[in-house]
Amino acid sequence: MSKAKSNLQIDSTRLWNDIHETAKFGATPKGGVRRLTLGAEDKQVRDWFRAACEAAGCEVRVDALGTMFALRPGRDMSKAPIGIGSHLDTQPTGGKYDGILGTLAALEVVRAMNDAGIETEAPICVCNWTNEEGSRYAPAMMASAAYAGEYTTENILGRKDIDGVTVAEALDTIGYHGAEPVGKQKFSAFVELHIEQGPILEAENKTIGVVDRGQGIMWYDGVITGFASHAGTTPMPLRRDALAAFAEFVLVVEKLAKELGPNAAGTVGEIIIDNPSRNVIPGDLKFTADIRSSESATLDKLHSDLQAAIEEISKRRKVTIELNQVWRKEPTVFDTKLVAAVENASKELGYSNRRITSGAGHDACNLATVMPAAMIFVPCKDGISHNEIEDATQADCAAGANVLLHTVLSLAGIASSTNTNS
Amino acid sequence: MSKAKSNLQIDSTRLWNDIHETAKFGATPKGGVRRLTLGAEDKQVRDWFRAACEAAGCEVRVDALGTMFALRPGRDMSKAPIGIGSHLDTQPTGGKYDGILGTLAALEVVRAMNDAGIETEAPICVCNWTNEEGSRYAPAMMASAAYAGEYTTENILGRKDIDGVTVAEALDTIGYHGAEPVGKQKFSAFVELHIEQGPILEAENKTIGVVDRGQGIMWYDGVITGFASHAGTTPMPLRRDALAAFAEFVLVVEKLAKELGPNAAGTVGEIIIDNPSRNVIPGDLKFTADIRSSESATLDKLHSDLQAAIEEISKRRKVTIELNQVWRKEPTVFDTKLVAAVENASKELGYSNRRITSGAGHDACNLATVMPAAMIFVPCKDGISHNEIEDATQADCAAGANVLLHTVLSLAGIASSTNTNS
Repeated sequence: MSKAKSNLQIDSTRLWNDIHETAKFGATPKGGVRRLTLGAEDKQVRDWFRAACEAAGCEVRVDALGTMFALRPGRDMSKAPIGIGSHLDTQPTGGKYDGILGTLAALEVVRAMNDAGIETEAPICVCNWTNEEGSRYAPAMMASAAYAGEYTTENILGRKDIDGVTVAEALDTIGYHGAEPVGKQKFSAFVELHIEQGPILEAENKTIGVVDRGQGIMWYDGVITGFASHAGTTPMPLRRDALAAFAEFVLVVEKLAKELGPNAAGTVGEIIIDNPSRNVIPGDLKFTADIRSSESATLDKLHSDLQAAIEEISKRRKVTIELNQVWRKEPTVFDTKLVAAVENASKELGYSNRRITSGAGHDACNLATVMPAAMIFVPCKDGISHNEIEDATQADCAAGANVLLHTVLSLAGIASSTNTNS
Repeated sequence: MSKAKSNLQIDSTRLWNDIHETAKFGATPKGGVRRLTLGAEDKQVRDWFRAACEAAGCEVRVDALGTMFALRPGRDMSKAPIGIGSHLDTQPTGGKYDGILGTLAALEVVRAMNDAGIETEAPICVCNWTNEEGSRYAPAMMASAAYAGEYTTENILGRKDIDGVTVAEALDTIGYHGAEPVGKQKFSAFVELHIEQGPILEAENKTIGVVDRGQGIMWYDGVITGFASHAGTTPMPLRRDALAAFAEFVLVVEKLAKELGPNAAGTVGEIIIDNPSRNVIPGDLKFTADIRSSESATLDKLHSDLQAAIEEISKRRKVTIELNQVWRKEPTVFDTKLVAAVENASKELGYSNRRITSGAGHDACNLATVMPAAMIFVPCKDGISHNEIEDATQADCAAGANVLLHTVLSLAGIASSTNTNS
């Protein structure tokens, strides 16, 4: 990367305006966005995005699951393009940055190349993946999962929302049921810019997160069976209190995750007592747990330590604890060369940076199973996401887009005809 | 008490038959009883009870809250009667013994005296207190509480059930809205026979529990406010997990109650997380707690130790914990002479016995605040009550009724005209 090239910048104001322009599609009174996948507002933003990509000289195609591919030609069209982008759908009470930053920054990268008169060797493909959020249709990240071969297209097309509308029907309704088979568009690499959705970059005052891993996830459903009895008449030593056993489980999850930190997280997010009453010792309850780590071996250890802990708790408290693993997703290891390219771009642009693990799932995590992939994080205020108050600064958004631009340039290569000093 | 008198027994078969005869009013398929206070089935059992009391020579009067008083005259009618009895209403899925044993055994005591030709000095009054259970109307034990002056009659008459029907309307509907002012019927003492509703007598193989205390109760409503955030992206050390703080609270309640045992109990029976989700760290939750002890000083210590514990937890975890005491009922100390009379009767009749604290609340606990009162416990199977599988043996029920009979005889005195050898 030449010094001259590192002076190339995206247009920060244009990107910022695009983010706020598209936030009107599904704007909420509290300043957030409600843009459920394949709904009326999603059609509005898709139409805007298609027009903007076409205006930037891209050819836009749509696959059978509605994912949009905007191709900027390269000098050598025999090369598979560098994919960049993210998603434009939001949570029911989502923010203006989650997914949107990465998609609009990808568009801005193309515009910046256009403005600078840069031709790349390989083509560039700006992507808007369908249903990353999973709020209207399960699973989350369904289009990239299908792309990666985890589901068939037919399986995903048949999924229904809460009103019984299938993905196929919703795609037809908004006119985004594309002809192109899922997976036909090949990439030589994929790079996704995203807000961190966590507090680490902000806490450490770093501008860029060089994402080298994505956490693996284990989901559990649990049932504890003790014995419901009278709070006044049952002596403490004779109790078989399901809630007290649950309390120990919650603290064990926390303790194990802390001990294996910082590369582990453990959360109990749900508990329901059967027939709860103020003066009845809880006899039966259900709960869920979410355990994560960027290391498979750590997931294994957390799993076996949890089993040992519940066995001990069950025995001592004379209750039964069922803990069923209902999902396990292996950690994502992003491509070493792509991660290095992101890190180099950050350094050459002079942004403070650190390696980071993605705590959340992203389309890039699915794509990483079938191609070299990487991610770039920028800070978000207080680490808050999936919330209408989600916030990020114009400077950080621009920094992330600049890192994306220079990463893509290094991956795609600049055609010799381009004047890099322009 | 003469040897001859101690041979006097109630009719075990007649009592057992009455228990199973009245269990038909509201019988459930699983062998329990559903007889909510002042409902159609309560009217059936009240009509049966009135007829049976009248057949036994008693005059039956009903007060303004529907409590039934069946008076067996004594030789000296200037003396206030000895009150005996309990309640005939049940939980929605209740059993055949809770309350019913004490009420029907009181009737059986009168019949046994009749059969033996015994005239007592003081009159005997068999009572059926309205709404002990509290399942249809709050508070539980409302009629005895009003009798003891804790509530006005008007206050209680205006209470509504879930369908908006007032106590006054329900009393009118079943024809048990009596003319007699609440509290007009005076007693020189009150003795209540009841199943233990706990496991102690059965575990220690004792037939009679000589109840010398009733536990005091403190009820709390709690709110914990942490910060809801993403289970994947929030590092363990930065979490403000409301559920983990709650888990510590649950175990603190258990620990404090155990340390102060056996005269303490602590139970957390309810918890609701706001907007729970498998992959969101709980930010806000509500809970309740029930703390009991037979000693006021122990209640005080539990209260202050809990405050100290939540202060420490709040500070360490950076969450707020509100713990509001919504009710405190002081422990009941039953009358020394009456407790001795129950103990003496148990011994003279040759029943194994022990002093015991009532874990649950009973009408006798309310009445003990305004008159000398005592209780007699008999074992119930596995300590289970408020349940359709609630069970007790004929022998234990009869033993309890015999202790009640001889306690009443010692309190009321036997008129000199009576031939105690009959």
